[in-house]
Amino acid sequence: MFGEIKLLEKQADYDKLIKEFGAKRFSPKILEILKTRHKLIEMGFFFAHRDFDKYLEIFKRGGQVAIVSGRGPSNYIHLGHLIIFDFIRWLQSELDAEVYIPLSDDEKYVFNKVKTLEEAYKYAIDNALDIAALGYNPEKTHMYVSSQTKWVYKISLELSRHLTYSTVKAAFGLTDSVNPGVVFYSAVQAAHILMPTIKYNYPVVVPIGMDQDPYMRLTRDIAAKIKVFKPASIYARYLRGLTGEPMSASQPETCIFINDSPETIKRKVWNAFTGGRATIKEQRELGGEPEKCVVYEWLMVYEFKDVKEALEHKMKCVSGELICGVCKEKLYNALIRFIKEHYKRKDSIKNKIQDYFDHEI
Amino acid sequence: MFGEIKLLEKQADYDKLIKEFGAKRFSPKILEILKTRHKLIEMGFFFAHRDFDKYLEIFKRGGQVAIVSGRGPSNYIHLGHLIIFDFIRWLQSELDAEVYIPLSDDEKYVFNKVKTLEEAYKYAIDNALDIAALGYNPEKTHMYVSSQTKWVYKISLELSRHLTYSTVKAAFGLTDSVNPGVVFYSAVQAAHILMPTIKYNYPVVVPIGMDQDPYMRLTRDIAAKIKVFKPASIYARYLRGLTGEPMSASQPETCIFINDSPETIKRKVWNAFTGGRATIKEQRELGGEPEKCVVYEWLMVYEFKDVKEALEHKMKCVSGELICGVCKEKLYNALIRFIKEHYKRKDSIKNKIQDYFDHEI
Repeated sequence: MFGEIKLLEKQADYDKLIKEFGAKRFSPKILEILKTRHKLIEMGFFFAHRDFDKYLEIFKRGGQVAIVSGRGPSNYIHLGHLIIFDFIRWLQSELDAEVYIPLSDDEKYVFNKVKTLEEAYKYAIDNALDIAALGYNPEKTHMYVSSQTKWVYKISLELSRHLTYSTVKAAFGLTDSVNPGVVFYSAVQAAHILMPTIKYNYPVVVPIGMDQDPYMRLTRDIAAKIKVFKPASIYARYLRGLTGEPMSASQPETCIFINDSPETIKRKVWNAFTGGRATIKEQRELGGEPEKCVVYEWLMVYEFKDVKEALEHKMKCVSGELICGVCKEKLYNALIRFIKEHYKRKDSIKNKIQDYFDHEI
Repeated sequence: MFGEIKLLEKQADYDKLIKEFGAKRFSPKILEILKTRHKLIEMGFFFAHRDFDKYLEIFKRGGQVAIVSGRGPSNYIHLGHLIIFDFIRWLQSELDAEVYIPLSDDEKYVFNKVKTLEEAYKYAIDNALDIAALGYNPEKTHMYVSSQTKWVYKISLELSRHLTYSTVKAAFGLTDSVNPGVVFYSAVQAAHILMPTIKYNYPVVVPIGMDQDPYMRLTRDIAAKIKVFKPASIYARYLRGLTGEPMSASQPETCIFINDSPETIKRKVWNAFTGGRATIKEQRELGGEPEKCVVYEWLMVYEFKDVKEALEHKMKCVSGELICGVCKEKLYNALIRFIKEHYKRKDSIKNKIQDYFDHEI
């Protein structure tokens, strides 16, 4: 279990993260305190962590814990984003955690991903609805638009004194042609992550993609300097985009947006990169290659209820029993079902979005 | 008139400012719209401007104008700071101008001039009282503590996209070891200056020391990019410190703090750098050198009511009629009188300081 099933191929930097930067694989032991298991941990999507064991120790001793996960609002949300937020929703209910969700309009603005802060704000509110619709507990969820609060600037100033431009330049890979807002954003990001610890003394865990680890290390260094709990992390592998490339909002064919029409979804799924053979005849004789198949990866998230079902499906593919059309149909139906239910939930909370916003912090 | 009297020696960069950067000397013509004359313009302390003529054109046509002048709250205020704020108070009443006074705790914090933002806040409130006590019109005065408002961060983000780290590095003379807050402060300073123009379409003038012109030019470049009125400036020469070196709060003997005791003031004045000769005999024979004399410079500000009185005094010094002790006594008395009256005014408004703060911007 825990990655040993090899449902998924290793992704780049996986080993580096484990060996060089002290991340650890999930073990059944550290998770035994949780009431339920999350299939995406079992399937190896969330595959490693740093200091999540220390964090759970505080939880075990009865301490209030917090989760931080940001969203940069420069577009409508796509299904890839929701996976991590759905995982956090599960973690919130497991740990009764306070969840902080910065909607970082400032980030998207300084990195030129939106024309105006107002444009980012519009997406922020829509994105917030999509996230809340996953079933967050409004009592324990604290969303905020980064440029709209006083404390973001204030805490960022305080943390900035523990960074230098040289360090930031290296961690973010900047050149001197960046604007001052980009440079300062390094401190702003640290402020988002550390705020629950600084203000309320809650330990924080941040579920992130592996490639974001340099910023986590920067933030952990600051935490060490100001002598607070160093934020833990949970590492997610990326669900590959439908075309086989990484999902990216700026390449619409790689992902499914929450507001894609059924026709668009059908086209994207039918054009998806699979592990299928060139002809049905070959497929029957040689079997498919599910390790390569994006559709199989997506079915793990949206269709299979557990590892057992995923493995059974894999066997059917390898044996040549399945052809790609069947899997695509299955994925299409699963996505339509997910989106339909999502909109129902989104509609039901659309007048309550302010309940999820934190007006005090 | 206007500097031609040569009451004062030229200061470094004076010619450069005029020749290379397009500043202009004050001329009687552009000032004729003002109801009164300010002795420090006549005496040449405020000696040049950039675009103040364009600014006054808008005023003449009935437009509301604004003045911006910041204070970095890292210490108690000293008399040098108050000269510029007293000039602005006069300009406010001449032009019925809206005056914006950012108390830039963020600046002092990122530049390590205070230990905490709270320390800067404490000074900010005390400095605000000293400034307000000069006689500002609370209806038209808008003070704010920079890190305590939402809009400072927001407008700074917007302006940061018009700057690059390279430009900022050159203008502020930074190295890569600075913290991200210092880099971002370039945008924050521009936000302070441009806010009244961006938010209310008021043309702005900023009275500044000559050495601050690089930041003004940076801000004017941004104004050009966002297509708003480029902030005008009025250039002040520096009143030299009592020791002959520049006044600096970190070198207490150079300046008089508003809370210095009479004994301290006496000591500082008696140790001041003068244009006096080595002995009284020499002084009587050769006369003093008022152009070199700090005490004479300070008397212009705190004692002489106009250019005529300053010239008469100068003649008495040059002729050997005066000895330094007389001038020092005169200055000491003038300072004590000024401070006594200042405290009376400060006391009378100490419960009204919130009237000068802007709670909306």
